[in-house]
Amino acid sequence: MSNVKIIADNLPNIPWQDKPENCVGPVWRYSENPIIGRNPLKGVARIFNSAVVPYQGEFIGVFRGEQTNGIPYLYLGHSKDAIHWNYEPDKISFVNEKGEPYMPRYAYDPRLIKVEDTYYIIWCTDFYGAALGIAKTTDFKKFVRLENPFLPFNRNGVLFPRKINNNFALLSRPSDSGHTPFGDVFLSESPDMVYWGKHRHVMAKGSQWWQSLKIGGGAAPIETSEGWLLFYHGVTGTCNGYVYSMGACILDIDNPSIVKHRCDTFILTPEEWYEERGFVANVVFPCAALTDAKTGRIAIYYGAADSYVGLAFTTVDEIVDYIKANEGTSEDDRNYGVM
Amino acid sequence: MSNVKIIADNLPNIPWQDKPENCVGPVWRYSENPIIGRNPLKGVARIFNSAVVPYQGEFIGVFRGEQTNGIPYLYLGHSKDAIHWNYEPDKISFVNEKGEPYMPRYAYDPRLIKVEDTYYIIWCTDFYGAALGIAKTTDFKKFVRLENPFLPFNRNGVLFPRKINNNFALLSRPSDSGHTPFGDVFLSESPDMVYWGKHRHVMAKGSQWWQSLKIGGGAAPIETSEGWLLFYHGVTGTCNGYVYSMGACILDIDNPSIVKHRCDTFILTPEEWYEERGFVANVVFPCAALTDAKTGRIAIYYGAADSYVGLAFTTVDEIVDYIKANEGTSEDDRNYGVM
Repeated sequence: MSNVKIIADNLPNIPWQDKPENCVGPVWRYSENPIIGRNPLKGVARIFNSAVVPYQGEFIGVFRGEQTNGIPYLYLGHSKDAIHWNYEPDKISFVNEKGEPYMPRYAYDPRLIKVEDTYYIIWCTDFYGAALGIAKTTDFKKFVRLENPFLPFNRNGVLFPRKINNNFALLSRPSDSGHTPFGDVFLSESPDMVYWGKHRHVMAKGSQWWQSLKIGGGAAPIETSEGWLLFYHGVTGTCNGYVYSMGACILDIDNPSIVKHRCDTFILTPEEWYEERGFVANVVFPCAALTDAKTGRIAIYYGAADSYVGLAFTTVDEIVDYIKANEGTSEDDRNYGVM
Repeated sequence: MSNVKIIADNLPNIPWQDKPENCVGPVWRYSENPIIGRNPLKGVARIFNSAVVPYQGEFIGVFRGEQTNGIPYLYLGHSKDAIHWNYEPDKISFVNEKGEPYMPRYAYDPRLIKVEDTYYIIWCTDFYGAALGIAKTTDFKKFVRLENPFLPFNRNGVLFPRKINNNFALLSRPSDSGHTPFGDVFLSESPDMVYWGKHRHVMAKGSQWWQSLKIGGGAAPIETSEGWLLFYHGVTGTCNGYVYSMGACILDIDNPSIVKHRCDTFILTPEEWYEERGFVANVVFPCAALTDAKTGRIAIYYGAADSYVGLAFTTVDEIVDYIKANEGTSEDDRNYGVM
């Protein structure tokens, strides 16, 4: 085993189970999955593809809640153990920088990432087509929408948890406005969260069949002594639809458009009933991870079948060893991504 | 007739012909069209969708030259009358900001726009998919590529000829990497030509059938006392392919994501042999315009059938009167374009 360091805070109350002896892969599921079931709150049929952060000794979640009218929106939840949740009944209210109401038409697949003293929510919003929306909060009471970072069409915006070379850094996946049968991950920078540029190609869909259709960022990259550990989703197409698996890679710490290691295999793929069955069958979609630097423990939150939230575990040593033992990095992944 | 002022320099040597008596529309073709025919220079089969500016008392053009291997590139041309051209034999050599060679894989549909003392070329480039490339020059000898402004997929980047509210302003058309059977025009701002943001929706494809599939910016907006006069292309789909016509609108001078007037009808549509026949039949594609503030004369350069360059004329009074007399602006056009 290597001895990789997570460069982040300790989190002694991270949810955790040890690896079962019969587990074949580098990531194992929580035994009580799914942690969020159907009809979790009034008017919301399903919660999935959602994000969790530690906050004031407990946990806060920003959840994709599919309202019973079919329109997805963002909901706030509180938890002491990051497993059992109390939801606020109303969807999150966004305001503009003047404090005036500024609600998106819909909002889905949120990521929730702390940079310095501010929490940023990035979601897929309607900007004359699917695009990224961003809002900030410091208290989880007032949520201020910022400028949409990019033109449409885009999805899967994932912010790095600190500035790199003095700029905010954001992964995203240029898309179309439909089910997007293509897609690579790009990196963009911003000095101020208003203007974005220095776009770089990070990595393309893979030659491996499990990620042969498209890929997209998942949890916020985890800073480690080996580079940025990124959990992402990879998608394959079948005669009966898409299958979403979880992949992992390590990006260069100073130039994260350079992929240092990319795992040839998925690290989790739909197998359990709550991943194979649901509104969209066969989806494992990571959106967030908690880490404990002291123990190297990682808890990954993933949407399951667009119907549930699942929790899975690994350690930084285990996953980094596994990625390196299953090296699938291409020439194109390794380069700087300019054209 | 109104008395609209063009807010720009005089250009006494603008190419010009008076309106023929039998002309039914607001725009009339040059009698000697096409001004650039087939095989204009060695290794280039066709020139079309190209841009012209006045330079040192004469004219410079940046041309889309389709090489005989089928790959489009940019070529430079010089002219005394803006009609007859001498081409430099080699494609334009781009360097990066360190002066090192930095050639795009392909380059097409250039716009060439002077802002302050610098000329900017914006073209469609390969950035892991169709995207906008930008380069600057002050002497038409050294061409320095800047950061690509946007993530893919994008086309039809059209810069405003001056900063607005202290920022560069760029129209573009989010696209796909193929023939793009959709497309609206957006506006983006940049303080520095590196980072872009404050994206706004300007206008969508129209309810009018001639622009019912997609639209895209054409010539650099012309500053007038009525607002920014924009010539653009509008596309319809038929059983035998797309048909590209020329449209016109007037954008608010300080907030150009607001459309003040948008012409219900096309102002030029394929009728002549060089517009109806060619590599891509039925294309009229404006990319540049010259203006003479003193007389109000406007000369529009347009690609014809992806095979030729055509020249057409109007006056600022004639076209603004026509647009206002054929008002087709929608509610959505008139709003600020935030979401």
